[in-house]
This record gives sequence, C-alpha cells and structure tokens, in this order.
Amino acid sequence: MPFTPTDYLPYDFANRRHIGPSPKEMAQMFKVLGVSDLEALIADTVPAGIRQDEDLAFGKPMSEREMLFHLREVASKNKVLTSLIGMGYHGTVTPPAIQRNIFENPAWYTAYTPYQPEISQGRLEALLNYQTMVSDLTGLDIANASLLDEATACAEAMTMAQRVAGSKAKAFFVDENCHPQNIAVMKTRAEPLGIELIVGAPDTLDPGRVFGAIFQYPGTLGHLRDLSADMAALHEAGAIGIVAADIMALCLLKEPGAMGADIAVGSTQRFGIPLGYGGPHAAYMATKDAYKRSMPGRIVGVSIDSHGNRAYRLSLQTREQHIRREKATSNVCTAQALLAVMAGFYAVFHGPDGLRAIAQRIHRKTVRLARGLEAAGFKVEPATFFDTLTVDVGLLQEGVLRAAVKEGVNLRRVGETRVGITLDEATRPATIEAVWRAFGLLRKDEDFAPDYRLPEALLRETAYLQHDIFHMNRAETEMMRYMRRLADRDLALDRAMIPLGSCTMKLNSAAEMMPVSWPEFAGLHPFAPADQAQGYTQMIDDLSDKLCQVTGYDAFSMQPNSGAQGEYAGLLTIAAWQKARGQGQRNVCLIPVNAHGTNPASAQMVGWKVVPVKCDEKGSIDLVDFRAKAEKHAEALAACMITYPSTHGVFEETVRGVCAITHEHGGQVYIDGANMNAMVGLSRPGDLGGDVSHLNLHKTFCIPHGGGGPGMGPIGVKEHLIPHLPAHPLEQGGAGPVSAAPYGSPSLLPISWGYILMMGGPGLTQATRVAILNANYIAKRLEGAYTVLYTGPTGRVAHECILDIRPFEKSAGVTVEDVAKRLIDCGFHAPTMSWPVAGTLMVEPTESETKAELDRFCDAMLAIREEIRAVEEGRADRDNNPLKHAPHTMEDLVRDWDRPYSREQGCFPPGAFRVDKYWPPVNRVDNVWGDRNLVCTCPPMSAYAEAAE
Amino acid sequence: MPFTPTDYLPYDFANRRHIGPSPKEMAQMFKVLGVSDLEALIADTVPAGIRQDEDLAFGKPMSEREMLFHLREVASKNKVLTSLIGMGYHGTVTPPAIQRNIFENPAWYTAYTPYQPEISQGRLEALLNYQTMVSDLTGLDIANASLLDEATACAEAMTMAQRVAGSKAKAFFVDENCHPQNIAVMKTRAEPLGIELIVGAPDTLDPGRVFGAIFQYPGTLGHLRDLSADMAALHEAGAIGIVAADIMALCLLKEPGAMGADIAVGSTQRFGIPLGYGGPHAAYMATKDAYKRSMPGRIVGVSIDSHGNRAYRLSLQTREQHIRREKATSNVCTAQALLAVMAGFYAVFHGPDGLRAIAQRIHRKTVRLARGLEAAGFKVEPATFFDTLTVDVGLLQEGVLRAAVKEGVNLRRVGETRVGITLDEATRPATIEAVWRAFGLLRKDEDFAPDYRLPEALLRETAYLQHDIFHMNRAETEMMRYMRRLADRDLALDRAMIPLGSCTMKLNSAAEMMPVSWPEFAGLHPFAPADQAQGYTQMIDDLSDKLCQVTGYDAFSMQPNSGAQGEYAGLLTIAAWQKARGQGQRNVCLIPVNAHGTNPASAQMVGWKVVPVKCDEKGSIDLVDFRAKAEKHAEALAACMITYPSTHGVFEETVRGVCAITHEHGGQVYIDGANMNAMVGLSRPGDLGGDVSHLNLHKTFCIPHGGGGPGMGPIGVKEHLIPHLPAHPLEQGGAGPVSAAPYGSPSLLPISWGYILMMGGPGLTQATRVAILNANYIAKRLEGAYTVLYTGPTGRVAHECILDIRPFEKSAGVTVEDVAKRLIDCGFHAPTMSWPVAGTLMVEPTESETKAELDRFCDAMLAIREEIRAVEEGRADRDNNPLKHAPHTMEDLVRDWDRPYSREQGCFPPGAFRVDKYWPPVNRVDNVWGDRNLVCTCPPMSAYAEAAE
Repeated sequence: MPFTPTDYLPYDFANRRHIGPSPKEMAQMFKVLGVSDLEALIADTVPAGIRQDEDLAFGKPMSEREMLFHLREVASKNKVLTSLIGMGYHGTVTPPAIQRNIFENPAWYTAYTPYQPEISQGRLEALLNYQTMVSDLTGLDIANASLLDEATACAEAMTMAQRVAGSKAKAFFVDENCHPQNIAVMKTRAEPLGIELIVGAPDTLDPGRVFGAIFQYPGTLGHLRDLSADMAALHEAGAIGIVAADIMALCLLKEPGAMGADIAVGSTQRFGIPLGYGGPHAAYMATKDAYKRSMPGRIVGVSIDSHGNRAYRLSLQTREQHIRREKATSNVCTAQALLAVMAGFYAVFHGPDGLRAIAQRIHRKTVRLARGLEAAGFKVEPATFFDTLTVDVGLLQEGVLRAAVKEGVNLRRVGETRVGITLDEATRPATIEAVWRAFGLLRKDEDFAPDYRLPEALLRETAYLQHDIFHMNRAETEMMRYMRRLADRDLALDRAMIPLGSCTMKLNSAAEMMPVSWPEFAGLHPFAPADQAQGYTQMIDDLSDKLCQVTGYDAFSMQPNSGAQGEYAGLLTIAAWQKARGQGQRNVCLIPVNAHGTNPASAQMVGWKVVPVKCDEKGSIDLVDFRAKAEKHAEALAACMITYPSTHGVFEETVRGVCAITHEHGGQVYIDGANMNAMVGLSRPGDLGGDVSHLNLHKTFCIPHGGGGPGMGPIGVKEHLIPHLPAHPLEQGGAGPVSAAPYGSPSLLPISWGYILMMGGPGLTQATRVAILNANYIAKRLEGAYTVLYTGPTGRVAHECILDIRPFEKSAGVTVEDVAKRLIDCGFHAPTMSWPVAGTLMVEPTESETKAELDRFCDAMLAIREEIRAVEEGRADRDNNPLKHAPHTMEDLVRDWDRPYSREQGCFPPGAFRVDKYWPPVNRVDNVWGDRNLVCTCPPMSAYAEAAE
Repeated sequence: MPFTPTDYLPYDFANRRHIGPSPKEMAQMFKVLGVSDLEALIADTVPAGIRQDEDLAFGKPMSEREMLFHLREVASKNKVLTSLIGMGYHGTVTPPAIQRNIFENPAWYTAYTPYQPEISQGRLEALLNYQTMVSDLTGLDIANASLLDEATACAEAMTMAQRVAGSKAKAFFVDENCHPQNIAVMKTRAEPLGIELIVGAPDTLDPGRVFGAIFQYPGTLGHLRDLSADMAALHEAGAIGIVAADIMALCLLKEPGAMGADIAVGSTQRFGIPLGYGGPHAAYMATKDAYKRSMPGRIVGVSIDSHGNRAYRLSLQTREQHIRREKATSNVCTAQALLAVMAGFYAVFHGPDGLRAIAQRIHRKTVRLARGLEAAGFKVEPATFFDTLTVDVGLLQEGVLRAAVKEGVNLRRVGETRVGITLDEATRPATIEAVWRAFGLLRKDEDFAPDYRLPEALLRETAYLQHDIFHMNRAETEMMRYMRRLADRDLALDRAMIPLGSCTMKLNSAAEMMPVSWPEFAGLHPFAPADQAQGYTQMIDDLSDKLCQVTGYDAFSMQPNSGAQGEYAGLLTIAAWQKARGQGQRNVCLIPVNAHGTNPASAQMVGWKVVPVKCDEKGSIDLVDFRAKAEKHAEALAACMITYPSTHGVFEETVRGVCAITHEHGGQVYIDGANMNAMVGLSRPGDLGGDVSHLNLHKTFCIPHGGGGPGMGPIGVKEHLIPHLPAHPLEQGGAGPVSAAPYGSPSLLPISWGYILMMGGPGLTQATRVAILNANYIAKRLEGAYTVLYTGPTGRVAHECILDIRPFEKSAGVTVEDVAKRLIDCGFHAPTMSWPVAGTLMVEPTESETKAELDRFCDAMLAIREEIRAVEEGRADRDNNPLKHAPHTMEDLVRDWDRPYSREQGCFPPGAFRVDKYWPPVNRVDNVWGDRNLVCTCPPMSAYAEAAE
C-alpha cells in the first residue's frame, strides 16, 4: 500500500455538516467542562433511569447525494396530474422570482418569528403587505398575519364568534355548501366545547337560534349567493356572520365586508403557493375593527422606535396564549409566515390589475368549459359561477372520472352521480380539451368563445390594493431588489446563531430543503387519488416508522400543522379513548405551572378543566402536590400534560413517577415534545410512560421556522390510542380531523425525512449529545457572571439553560429586555425572554453551532455583564448607557453623538462583526405606543414621508 | 358582459417583468425627451438607412410558466447516463449548500467583474481562495483567477512559454498523451502564429528543438509519468515545461511544481461543477513567480486601502489586452469567475482531509474496477494509475460500448480496439457492476477488495491547503454564513443598477436561470453520444435559427466561450475562407482606433497585421482614412473589424460604406456584437454588410456576468463562411476548434433561449428601444451638468452615453476615479471608467432599469456635480472633500471625524439608501501598492490580525 488511507469521511453529513463543533473543538470543550468525553458528560446529565435501552438502528446513514438520489426515486412514484378537484386547493403559478428569492432563500426561510421587532423589520413589512391585501380583498378592517389552514380558520372564526356575539345562543349554523373538510374540522372543534353545529341549506338558517353562522363563497359546488340579507338577519339577532371566501374570487366578486360580514376566512394558497399535497399554505382571517382584540393569531402593526421613527412589530401580543394561559380559548400561536409572505409578494407582483386579469381569465376559461359541456348536451350547474362547475352525469360518474384520469386530469367526485370541475390560473387550453374528451366531446378550445357568467348583483364595486406597494413597476429587477432589501433588514440563521430556548434553531441544510421544490412533491392535490401519491405514502410510512423508534410510540399521525395543534389532536385522541371505554366524563387535566402556555389552552379546547400542579424551587414537578391533585380528581382525571426535559431545561428524575400516578388514577400522559432535541437517541417518551406526544418537526427535525411558520406537529401514540387518532377530513372514525388536509403539510416532510436518512441512528444521537454539550458549555463559560437557574443534581443543564437577569434590575436598573436588545448590537438574536421564568433569558444553542459561534455569544454576554457592572459600580449612568440605548443603529452613528460612551463602544461591543456588522433598521421599538395606536395595514405614503423626516 | 375585461396581460414577461419602465413611466420620459412616443425617439436616433426591413417574427411570446414547461419537454429529450468517458470531464458532487447559496443566488451570479475592488471584496476573497487552492495543489507560486477551459489554457500556456522561454526555437512539443481536444485547440492556435507543433511520445522529445513542451498528467489513457527528468532537460535547453494536470489527482500525486514544471494548467470542473455538456467550467493556470507578469488572465491580489487596511483587488491590470492593444499576444479577458468561486468553495468545504479522502476513494474504486476486469481475463492498462483504465477488447469494442449504454453507462471509444474508463467521486458500486456487466462479468462490487496502485515514486510528499480558510469546521451552518458574509460585501444587480457601458448589465430573470440547474441540462458529458443529447440539439438549432433572424446571418457556431474568443473564432473563419479561395496571403486587418481592445489582440492571434484607422472628432470612423488604408493594403486586406453602433455609442451612418470598401478590396467584415443590445429588432449586422459577428450572450441575451464570467460568444456568419466555422474538437474540417467542448458552455444556453422565447420578436425589439430610451433619458437629465460626448446628428445617443469628466480635473482636481468611487457612496457600481475615452464615464442603463432607478442615478450624478462645483468655487477643499475620501465606510463613521463636511454629507449623498445603505467594506484601494507588493494567495492569519489592528 503506497500510502496510508485517511480515515476522514468526506460525506459524513452528521458529524461534519450538521453538527457544529468539530472533533477538535469538542475536545477543547470537554476540558472547559471538566469531562473526559461526550459520554461522560451525558452520563453526568441524563439520569441513567431514563436512558433508553437500545441505540437507534436506522441502517447506514446516507450522504447528501445518496439521500437526494433516494428521494428522487421515491418522488417519482408520485404522479403529478392536473387536479381540477377544487375544494379550496387550486393550481397556481408561483412567480419564479418569488420561488428563488423567498422560498429557496435561507435569509427568508431560516428566520424566526418576529418577536424581536428590531431584527425583523423586513418580514414584518412583508406580512403587513399580506394583511393589507387580505383586508382590502375581504373589505374588512383588520386581518391577521395568517392561520394554519382554511378549516382551522373556520373553527377559529366559530369560537371567536361565540366570544364576541351579543347572542347567548349555543348553536352555530354551517352552510352545507362549505367545503366538507371545513365542516369536519368545525365539528371536531364544536363538540367538546358544547357548541351545537347545525349544518343546512342557507335558506333554513334561523338567526335567533345561533350565535353565528358561516357560509362558503363561492359554495363548494360553485354556487354564488348574495349573503347581504343573511348577514343583516344575523345581526338583527345579535349573531355573527362569517364568510369563508375564495381570495381569487374576491378580485371580481362583491367582498364579504360589503355584504356585512363580521369575519372572513379563507386560504391564500392560490396566490402562488404550490399545492404540496395539502400544505403548507397560509389561511387568512379578517374582521371588523370592533372585534380586533378578539381575533386569534398574530397581527403585525405599526409603531415607533425610540427616536420616533416608524417601525413594525407584532401587535396585541398580550392576547397570545402564552400570556392568557388558562383563560385562552384558542391555542393558536404559529402562523404560516413564509407562505403568507409569498402570497403577499404574489399580490405585490401582480398588483390589482394583474389579479383582476388573472381572475377574469380563470372565469372566462370556466365559461368556455361550460359551453363545451353544454354543447355536448350536459347540464351544467350553477347558472352563474366563478371557477367551479358541477355536472350531473348519472351512472357515468365513474366512467368520466376514470376517463379524466387517463387524460391526466383529476376531477371531483360529488355524491354518486355528479362531477365537479374547478379551473385555475394554470389551466391551459389542452386541459380544457382533455376534460371535454373525458365527457366524450372532441372539440378544440378555440371552438368556444370565452364569456362571462357572473351574477350582476355580486360584481365587486370597490377598488382594492390601492396602496403604493401594490403599484410598483412589476419589473422583476425592482421586485428582486425589494425582496433583497427586506431580507437584509432581518437577522436569520444564515447570519448568526439564534439561541432561542425551546425553539431549537438548528441547521436547515440545503440538501434537506431542495426536494420541497420538486414538482413531484409540490404538485399534488390533497384529495388526489391515493394511487397517485405512492411516493408520499412510502415517505410517510418510513418516516412514521423511524419516529416511532425515536419516541417509543406505536403509530404517528402527520395531520397536525403545529405543535399546539399536535397537543390539541393528542388530547382529542385521549378524550376519544376515554369515551370509548365509557369514561367520557373525565375532564380534568393536570398541568404543572411551568408548562408551555399552549398546554392549558389546548386542554381548554377539548373542554377540559385545567388543574395546575406546583413546581419545587428547582423547577421540577412537586410530586406530592401532583399525587394530591391526582387523588383529589381521581374520578375525573382525563390526563396530565408534562414537558420532558422540563421547560426549565432539566431532566427530572421523577418523570416515571408522574406517569405512574396518572395511570393509577385513570388518566393518560401527554408528554410535550418541544424539548425532544434533548432526548433523541438517549431517551424515549413512550418508555417513560407517555401515551401521546407531539414532535415539533420544525424544531427537532430541521423544518425551518420560516419567519414564524410553517410548522409540523405530528403526534405519536401508544397502541391502544391508534383507533382514536384524527380521521381523514373526508372520512369518518377516530377523533375528528384537526386539519383541512389528511397529512397536514406533507410537502415539508422531505426535510425531516432527509435529515433522518442522512444522520442515521448514531448521528441523531450524537446531535442530541452535542446539543447538551453546547448548552453546558455556554452555562459553564457564563458561570460567575450570570446565575444559571435550575441545573440538575450534578450541576448540568440539558439542551438549554436559563440565565437570571432579575438581580440586575435592582442593582443596575437593567432589564431582560435591555440585555436582549444589547445582544442585537453584538449581532445576535436574543434568547427567549422571560419564559418560562420572568426576568430570565433561556438559551438553546442547538448542536449546529460551532464552538467559535458559541464563544462569540459568550464573549458578548460577558461583555454585557461588564457593562452592567459599570452601572452597578457607578462608572456608567443608569439611564444613559449602551444597554438602555440598545440596539444602536447606523443613524445613531450619523447623528450627533452626545452619549457618555463612545460610538465604538456603543456599536461594536464584543461579538459584533466588524466588516460584516448587522445593523438593525430601527432603534428600540415602543410596544405600548403600537398597541395604543393600532394600525395593521400598510400606512399611506405620506406617513412614510413623515417618518423619514 | 357583466364587467369590462381588463386589457392588462398578467403574464407579459417582456413588458412587465423584463423591461424596467412601466408604460406610465415611459410616458413621463417621453416628455422629458421631448418626443411623442418611443418610435419617434427611435426614428430620431437610429438612421433610417440601417433599419431592418421586417420585424422579428418568432411566434407568440411564452409566459414564464409556458417557457419552463416547454424547456422541461425539451430537456427530457436529453438522456442523462453515467459518463465514464473521462478526457478531463468527470462526474462530481456539487455540495447542495454551494449550489443553493452560490450557483442559484443572484447576489453571486449577477455580480460584475471585480474591477471596482471596493464593492467586490467578497468575490475577490473567494477567488483568492481559489488561487490559493490552485497554487497549493500544483505546487507553483502563483495562479490566476481562472481561464475559459483546459484546452484554451493549454494554448495560452504554449504562447506564454514562447514569450518567456530563453530558447528561440520555433517549435513546441505536445505529449501525445494529451487529451485530443487539448491538442486540437493548440493546433488551431499554433498554426497562424507560425509555431510548429510536434506531437509525439514523451520519449521522443528533443529539448533543443523546442521553446517548450506540454504533458498531460495523468495521460489521457491513464498513464502516469514522472516528468522531473523531462523538465530538467527542457530547462537545460532554455525551454519551458508545462503540465496539464488533473486537479483531483494532485491531491495524491506529486505536484507539477515538485517535478520542476514552469506552468501548470487544467480544469477544476471536478471540484463540484456540473458537467453541463461541456461547460461552463473554470480552467486554472499556475506558474513560477519569475513568470507572473507574463501570465494571461486575471489575478486577484492583496493590497491596502487608504487607511492602510488590507484589501483585495485585481492585480497587474495593466497587462490586460485593453491596455496592450496591438501589443497583446492573448485576447483573454474573461474568466470563469462563478465557477472558480464554486470550485474554491468546494475546496474550502472539504479541506485537505476531505479532498485527499475523495481522491483516495476514487482511486480505490478504480482498483476495484480493474480487479474485476482482470478477474474476467481482460488486460488492463496502465499498471499504475489514478482513476483511468484502458482495456484492449479487440473486436468487441462496439459490443462493449453498446452494452455499457444499455446499462446506463457511457465508456470511451479509444482507437478501434480499446475502451477507456474513468471513475469519479460520483461513481457508485452499482455503476462499477454495470461496467463489469458490459464486459460480460456478473459480479458484485464487494467481491473485490479495494486497494492501491499508485506509483510509489509519484506519491505526493508535500502538504497543501494549510491556510486557515481550508480548515474551517466543515459545518454547513458556518459555511452558509461565510458565503452570505462574502456576498453581502459586494454590490451586484440584485441591489442596484450597474450602469456599465459596453457590458449590458440587464435582468437575469429567475425563470431563465432555473433550467440551468436541471439534471437534464447539467448532467451530460460533452462527448456523450449525440443521440443522448437530442434536447440540446433541438435547443441549439432553434436558438441558432432565432439568432440568425436577429442578426441577418445564415448560421451560428456556439463554440466560443467569450466575446473575445468569438472574435478569434470569427477571424479564423475568415482566414480559412481566404485560404480556401487561394488568398491565404491576406493578413492585414483594418481596425478603427476606438475599437474594443480585444479586437487588435484577436487579430494578432490569427497572425494578422493590425492597421489602425482614424476616427473623426465625433468618434466615427474616418471614411477617407479607411478608404486610403484599404486601397494601400488592397492585396493584403484580410478583414476589417468594426463595432456597431460604435464604441462611442453612436449609430454611424457610414457603416454600409465601410463594409462596401472592405469587400471591394477583397476583405471580409467583422462586426463586433458587443453593442447588439442597441440593434436587436431594429438593425441587423448581416444586412449592413457584415460577414461575421459574435454575440455576447452574457450581455445581450441575459446570461449573468457571474462576477467575471462565464460568458458565451457564439458567432454568426454569412453562407459562404459556413464551411469554415470552427470544427468539433474531436473532428476535422473548417477552422480548427477554439474550445475544448463542441458547443462551448452549452448549459448556459437555456438562459438565452428562455429569454428569447418569453420576449418574442416584438418584446426583443421593445427591449432595444427601451435601452435606447433609458440611455437618452439619462443623457437628457444630466445635460448641462455634464458634457455628453459623441451624440448622433440629432443629438441622441444609442444605448449608452459617455460623460466627460476631464474638465473637472483642471477645474477642481477631480478625476474620473473620484467620481466612480463617490458613486459607491451613492449605492451604485460605477459606469465604465476611461473607456473608450480616457477621463470619461460610459453609462449603459439597459432596458431593465426602472425610471425610479434611473432617477436615483441621475440624482446622484447631479449631486456629485454640485460637490465638484463646490470645489471649483472654493467652497470645498481640493484634497479634503467627499469626492477625494470616497468611498466612505462604516469605519469612517465610527472613528473621529475631522472632515470639513459632515458624516451625513459624506455617507448619505443623494441616491444612497437610508435603511438599506450599502457599505463598502474597505476605503479606496491602493492600486500601486498592490502591484508593487504582489501577493496572490491567501495571506497568513497573522496578516489578518495585523490588518485588524
């Protein structure tokens, strides 16, 4: 052998691409921590009693290339037909500039939720554009920054209606023309809340009996009804009127606001978002000004910064579930930010002229289609329509559907004799001809002139998208630069660590992201025939298998679209099981006080009573109190909800005890999977006694946060719960469906699957270990400067650590917010603020950060501590110091500098890059001002001019 | 009809996506220009006598979606087999992070050549990494920033050897083991220069007879020869030794420098660059320190800025052809920057450990392959090898090749009885088994142990890539951030107009770029059987047809990889035609003095004598002088080379006269296509009298500049020249080949084709008109403030305008460089400096810029004029003013400010964005210092520390 072979593995994704610290760096970190190796640290940190027995065994990990090769093979088993099924899902044309510059750009997709407004002005502006678009098109005063999907938006609208209605009626009316998945999800939601759902024809509505009513517009079979009279009748009775409206149809048709609707909901999928076999897509919700404080979801608003300059922020955050806890009536906290951003850009790209033209083209094509069918002798319903036709073909239904598939087209099966057809902007003449052929008609597209069959009374009379932002040039050069400018205003993972406790901001690798763009994953309708989705089936089955191995559960449901929705789905599953075994009366849920705020909110949503359980001074569940509460509620105990490792970042040794007590008293154990990144490969919730858990695929399994969504919160369950998992939204059985689409947002799954395939079992386990290593390294380096709250018995933390800032408020007048904003000057997104403990910062570095980046963060934190000390020791002014003025902007540098510290000290604290310095576009944003002066649509240009002064 | 249909065309790519000014903006511009409409302006600008008779008729323009749909259909006609053909082209694994963050990121691919170093520090650093990699791996002192392809690099090395050799011999020796396309291109180059090419076995080299020799390493059939003795013998005789080396092999084998080579060349394709049916790829060249000033191509070097901070720049620019003109011996000016950047990142990504491991894996797989073949009884050549085997199969050659194709593998046909096989990093076990099956052997990969068969004497003994930059963590998070940081340091088209005269920096739309990434275009070997490339054939045929219509020529050759190479190929074609008609003695080329610097250089390269022709005071060709020179050289006149519209940006009315005179005297007319963006749809060079033109597809037809390449310079010719077009590099006929690959860099062609398909004939013509409108708008707005040189008879300019800065040198001591650097403060890349007239700026806005962006530029230029006036009027200091200190950096803001103007005035002149301000990372770069202290590899970290102080 003429030379020594190297033992370096060049395609080792896990250890050299995904995991940040190199072997050499890890050795240095062991020294700092005083441990011999990684396993010693883990043994020190993770109690032996909770360690899993066997290592994960997934076969050989794949290289990036092998994984992509494998996924191409699997993807090719999906057949991408043209789906004219409708039901709220439509073909669309994603402008390539948006696909490349947003959807495939890490600056956009790796960003976090814009809770820190100073580093989020770009996506906040993009979301404000989206809200303005929704508000304009629906004709309502205020819109939120998106919801998970149209069906959950309907359910949220229903519960919101109950909150705001004058009527105290207990029933809610649902137009039978609503899409069936919308009805199904509302049913699921209504039942545990004791809402009586009346599904019927609009004319059967009795306004006096209900607190609200919802109508689909256009109806699922294409019908258009002027809802003005219905709205008036509802208002007369003190009830709330809701319209689930097609956003594209609103470009031509009378808007819900003009008909008097109180709330409008719908999907913005057809504004440029790929079908993706069901998601992710952004659903919208808009309402009247009077109801804005009752609207769920995030709302972007306009405020000012400390210099009085205009700045965007999330408004009304105090409404969010993490503040309201037991009082919450919705557990919604995630939005579909990335998709909302894209839909907003689609509107900016096309402007009102373009949208109107697109809507007209869709309609004209539909008329042409109808004329052909009529020429062939078919009777087409309805008489006037936007894009959807229904044809009664009698016994021919199966034949037409099959013939269509042979022509490469999916039509909708309606009842036993009818066929539905919905056209969209992607419909080509060849598609229309193919549909005709499926009906036996051999004609050419141009044989039939396009025309209009919209109801005169329902034509839209108002203008929309009048703001300048929708009147850009439409030149791609200008659009590309606008997208770049907004991206540059934000700080995302592609520039710096985002050490957000409980959010696991790890690498979203390019290899994992690429398949999401492939047509074979992006192009399928959620209700396409199953035999066209065999690639999806294979992926979902294999991914579920592997997640079962990771968690110790027996089956997974991919339906929930967020962690909170996973909780809700999991509790529904438990409730269904309790009911099935004759224990339907059980309605108490034990939740420790340090739980995620979504936990009690989710329990509320299934109609349960939340009973809080105390924690001890170490942040662990007080087992005595837990047992006492369990005994006290033994007859009514439905479940407990715990987080493991705890939200305080500690592996509690009592976890098995908690589970046992719950089971003894007839309850089921829900283990929140938010902290799974500390467990994968080391410990399995299913082994600890959990009956259900959700996994945040967007935390632990690499789906990017997208600036505040999409997310995925699939749930794993033990065998006895399998029959009670959420049902397919168009089928019966189990708990009711929680999402519009059967598998939630399946086009994201290649990310998590690709990650697992490339990591393999040992790689996943190593990632967990290094996540724990990184957190302990930070805790160690900051020791002395900051108090780390809640360590385990050996003084270690799990995968995150809580730094106590409270003492400095007294000693130096420095708050947790001051430290968070000062970190922006250092080039960092702040850690999680004041959660789970007020006045603290929770830091989670994840395994993907290198030692160099951890050191940069520690250097910044240590320097901040010295700045605090300077105040403590009287060397710096309590109110006029770098912490109070943080973050500093470029404008600070330009204007006269009258500070007692230098420009250099202010703007380039340790940690900050020099040449590559990140500058926030605004100074500290005034939260109170923004909530007091709520503006949630794009401000007029005059306001910009004013701000510029 | 219930509503008025909108006449807005939402998918109109030409008028609403590609062309910047909206119809409304254009109307405003007409007012400023005092014309009624666009056609009136064009009539005013373009002489009637040169207008083309008929409009372009390409059928209906496609929408982005239709174009992508069509290209998918065409792409599917290419069959992507696994090509083990070798010959310098190899399968490779592009790291997904590089593909997404560089190759598919407009911040990288829309950048211009880094002539303005202050706004190019990112790509300059990336190219310096590349040069360091090449220098290390070849073991030579200095490397350039890439050449067009390996074959042209060989030819450049040959002519460079002639320049630097002590020997005055006229012959050059070529190892017969060189790749055939390398030999073919060197032949093409040698002949007109009178170099005798001796092709033979290495042992037949007679060093005394030659000025230099080139060897392939490993040889094209896999042989490895220790060239140390050959090099010593050459040196003894005063001759130069050149090695064309495989960059991957150098990771294991003794490097050319260690064998005494003076020059090394090769391709870096296999460092992560897709095959692309032949290109684009970056070729490298490295040499000894002694020869650095004779090395062609761009060289990135290290210098300092005005504050003494380290800064990168292009070194030794005075060597470039645009300065040397008639003295040039090479016309090389383009590099393959984007591909060199990618190859450099590939090395940074893998580091020396990774590269060594990859090279070892390739070698071990090859040994395994050999063992299998030997086990089946085949005799494998050579005895020791790196990655290439040759097998004599006698009469079975055709059978084996066909069987391999059936197995999905292309092997190489060598002579009439042999088969060549070259493995690469992408070779999978299944591929090896497929090859075995083609040879009749049914065995499993694991049946044969891998081993080593490298010659002991040729093992590499030196370390490489020791610089810290190649010892990053290899974590994707870190790599992604590094790529982002470098991108952010540069100003590219995705942030601002780049109004570079003669460079046509127009939109490179996302839709045009996307197909380049598709495997069906990216995965083909240039010498794959033609029946596997039917999609390429269809595209090339249709694109050629359309380019013929645009230009008035009869055929196109896609072979040239740059505009300059197009010139060279065009002149070769003319020379071949002259020779074929018995006029081989003709060797005079008339070139006006305002020609592109590449023109005389190209004429030199075909062995012609350049006779300059005068221009009049308007910058137009002096027809009297032209006729006189043509008459004087009537017997020897080979051709004239003109640019139309002229490099002064004027449509000269004399063009037909020039052509007629040339033809009268037996010459051919070469019309340089650099300014075709002013002609498409309005005027055709073929109609004006041109016999040949090249088109810069990277100017006029949307291929992005990539930070300094790739380019494409196909040539169009009249019918009589068709038989003399450049030949396929592996075939005979026509002029010799000018590129290694038959169609140059064909994987770029989808960009230009997509553009043409989406624009249609009217769209292309409109683009030309708007390019002229935009240029005239700028000229008009700057009227009074600046003198616009060289306008046409009606006072209009063509698609660019020249602003005279010379008067200000006298009046205010302000140079063209001061204005250019001040424009950086305003957020602009400077226009072309001092070309074609020293002391001027040539501005070309292109049709893709909106009026708003043109106005931003004009505002900036007008404000600069006022700053000059302040100096002129004594209100500002001649040496201490914003122009002299430009560009200003963030560091200027931080440090003490002792300037007579404010921070605000310095850093935020009119035009500059406020929140989105672009900050150059360095102050003005010192050019002289850099050339005097030439450092062209990454400086040691100690130097960085020093710079940081």
